Amino acid sequence: MDLISVNEALKIVLNHTTDFGVETVNFMNAFNRVLKEPITADRDFPPFDRVSMDGVAVDIEVFNKGQREFNIEGVQAAGSEQLTLKNPSNCIEVMTGAVMPKNADAVIKYELTETIAKHIFLKSDALKQGDNVHKQGSDCAKGTLLLEPNILIGAAEIGILASVGKNRVRVAKQPKICVISTGDELVEVSQTPLPHQIRRSNVFTLEALLKRLNLKSTSFHIKDNKAVLKQNIEDLLNHYDVLLLSGSVSKGKFDFIPEVLNELGVKKRFHQVKQRPGKPFWFGKKGDKTIFAFPGNPVSTFVNCVKYFYPWYYKSVGLNFENKQQAILSEDFYFKPEMTYFLQVKLTQVEGKLMATPISGKGSGDLANLALADAFLELPDNRSNFTKGEVFPILRYRSV
Amino acid sequence: MDLISVNEALKIVLNHTTDFGVETVNFMNAFNRVLKEPITADRDFPPFDRVSMDGVAVDIEVFNKGQREFNIEGVQAAGSEQLTLKNPSNCIEVMTGAVMPKNADAVIKYELTETIAKHIFLKSDALKQGDNVHKQGSDCAKGTLLLEPNILIGAAEIGILASVGKNRVRVAKQPKICVISTGDELVEVSQTPLPHQIRRSNVFTLEALLKRLNLKSTSFHIKDNKAVLKQNIEDLLNHYDVLLLSGSVSKGKFDFIPEVLNELGVKKRFHQVKQRPGKPFWFGKKGDKTIFAFPGNPVSTFVNCVKYFYPWYYKSVGLNFENKQQAILSEDFYFKPEMTYFLQVKLTQVEGKLMATPISGKGSGDLANLALADAFLELPDNRSNFTKGEVFPILRYRSV
Repeated sequence: MDLISVNEALKIVLNHTTDFGVETVNFMNAFNRVLKEPITADRDFPPFDRVSMDGVAVDIEVFNKGQREFNIEGVQAAGSEQLTLKNPSNCIEVMTGAVMPKNADAVIKYELTETIAKHIFLKSDALKQGDNVHKQGSDCAKGTLLLEPNILIGAAEIGILASVGKNRVRVAKQPKICVISTGDELVEVSQTPLPHQIRRSNVFTLEALLKRLNLKSTSFHIKDNKAVLKQNIEDLLNHYDVLLLSGSVSKGKFDFIPEVLNELGVKKRFHQVKQRPGKPFWFGKKGDKTIFAFPGNPVSTFVNCVKYFYPWYYKSVGLNFENKQQAILSEDFYFKPEMTYFLQVKLTQVEGKLMATPISGKGSGDLANLALADAFLELPDNRSNFTKGEVFPILRYRSV
Repeated sequence: MDLISVNEALKIVLNHTTDFGVETVNFMNAFNRVLKEPITADRDFPPFDRVSMDGVAVDIEVFNKGQREFNIEGVQAAGSEQLTLKNPSNCIEVMTGAVMPKNADAVIKYELTETIAKHIFLKSDALKQGDNVHKQGSDCAKGTLLLEPNILIGAAEIGILASVGKNRVRVAKQPKICVISTGDELVEVSQTPLPHQIRRSNVFTLEALLKRLNLKSTSFHIKDNKAVLKQNIEDLLNHYDVLLLSGSVSKGKFDFIPEVLNELGVKKRFHQVKQRPGKPFWFGKKGDKTIFAFPGNPVSTFVNCVKYFYPWYYKSVGLNFENKQQAILSEDFYFKPEMTYFLQVKLTQVEGKLMATPISGKGSGDLANLALADAFLELPDNRSNFTKGEVFPILRYRSV
């Protein structure tokens, strides 16, 4: 037996990433993609001394001398060219977002003024130079680095791309992924299975797990026939960057996948990991093509996708992300075999602490159980007793 | 001034939700949608006594009597009809996922056997009735409720829908949403702004925040002209369920939105909330139409979308979800005004504890700052001093 540990397996997977290159997309399509260029400020932000409160702009010296009654010289609207306060004894009404008029120093908000006829009375003595003016360049100067490459583009980043005029933006290309089921017991979702059959489900679970990463995929089913498997997988290797297989990697008489992949020149990097569930996981490479052959049990496939494929993808596209999340075990737990155990847990947040409550499943075939939990707690292989209050890494599979 | 508290505002928003009804979609399109029907097991799971290990099935009584050498009577593959062990002194080779052969009681895994000629030798004395057999109905019996309605459909749920043959599934209909910018200082992203202009960004940020919820939207820009605004908003009210506006809700001379909405028969539910940023938020209803008119500053729009629109949407589609997340303030913080303060924070997880570190921004116009943070810490309005180690609610805007 050539079982390796979970840490060794992950290390090997991460040593076999692939760079899929870069493409340029419209910035709105860049949401949830990985940024591949630095984004800098194309001008000062704000680009001008910006009025930040609707009100009245005055010359602070005049105000300081005690003048409180002003003639209105004009209105400075947002989107209009800068006005000039010609007579320092006058004022200009100014709107949020407008350019601060020339020769005016401070803005007093409308709530502290009163308008009688064409005169404005200021009802406050507390006004300082620069009040309610957002100074040019005070958020950032032209040329400032706003976004570093290799981050995931979220809503805030979309706003920044728009602000600096990055209509087209360079992002990581996404791999072409094919998800493949095997197993002659499987029928389509729309079919009524015979007593000895079940419906396909793993490929759809995998496709949904990929959608969480904003990844598209195509799915296929291949019969448990060695020649057919070989022909089909050879074709698919030519068309896809990544194959995610589910099933036919164990010790069974019809578990042809490792043999077929070997015959097709896919180099095995490991087969079988010291973990439960998910032990018979097979991983290999052929040139730039990457093959994750997961065991066919629903929970095994699920946990291996999150544990191995996710970080492989993050590293491949250069995403600066490491899962450092941990949770606190909420009750004692015992697991004897010397294997890493991926315990299904329900997470709850109590006063900023993340608690993990075990959801006792019926084994690796129990898909229904996955719906009750929202993460796997990763319990190390060198112990059997895990105590309430201890902290362990988690693999989350639901967004918050 | 009719300022209301954040809690009052949220309560009013949540008292004005809209039921958008139910639609039926292909189960793969149901990912990230809200389930609107109970999902039950259409058969036992597993649907038959299922072999859970590749190996050899025997009659346990024969084994218990000491027999260790068996003739192979046949091979039970996954997806094949159930075989019968005709002679109890023989064995049948069985594959993971196959039906357990009739008259056989236990499976011994291949690793513990040796095949010589056509005979199989069992190299273990530890075998019990039912070993490596996943009993019919042991995960769940036919008719068991697997998924309750009003949950978000994730990857695990997709797998369950497939397993029980729910090719078409009922989910909550999504509202038709229009995102509208106003402000004559705004130009398109692809344009080079004049000195007194800036590019549109809030609508794109809002559209991205909606995408996080799997919501599509359309965006428009309307000039700061009362007649034009009125005409356009009237049209949009006829075509959309929800309008998200950004800008023109403050005290400015061209802040026509509240007036225009009032003239169009939209009933104001509140205007102005005791919070920073985001104070001038206006919220109203006209029949089933809902109007969120957010202030035009980038951070104000952002925080109000996450604080008010998100829970409004969750409740409207019946999603059983309440944001109870909290984080621990990592340093002392001071904020004087008697308003709820939405502090931008960077979250880090340390041994299962979620720490919130303030990211000092330059105010509500500082969009760049949003990229450095990943949540808002909600500091209550009745205090000014917030101490390191205290726990406060958070509004996250990045997925983990």
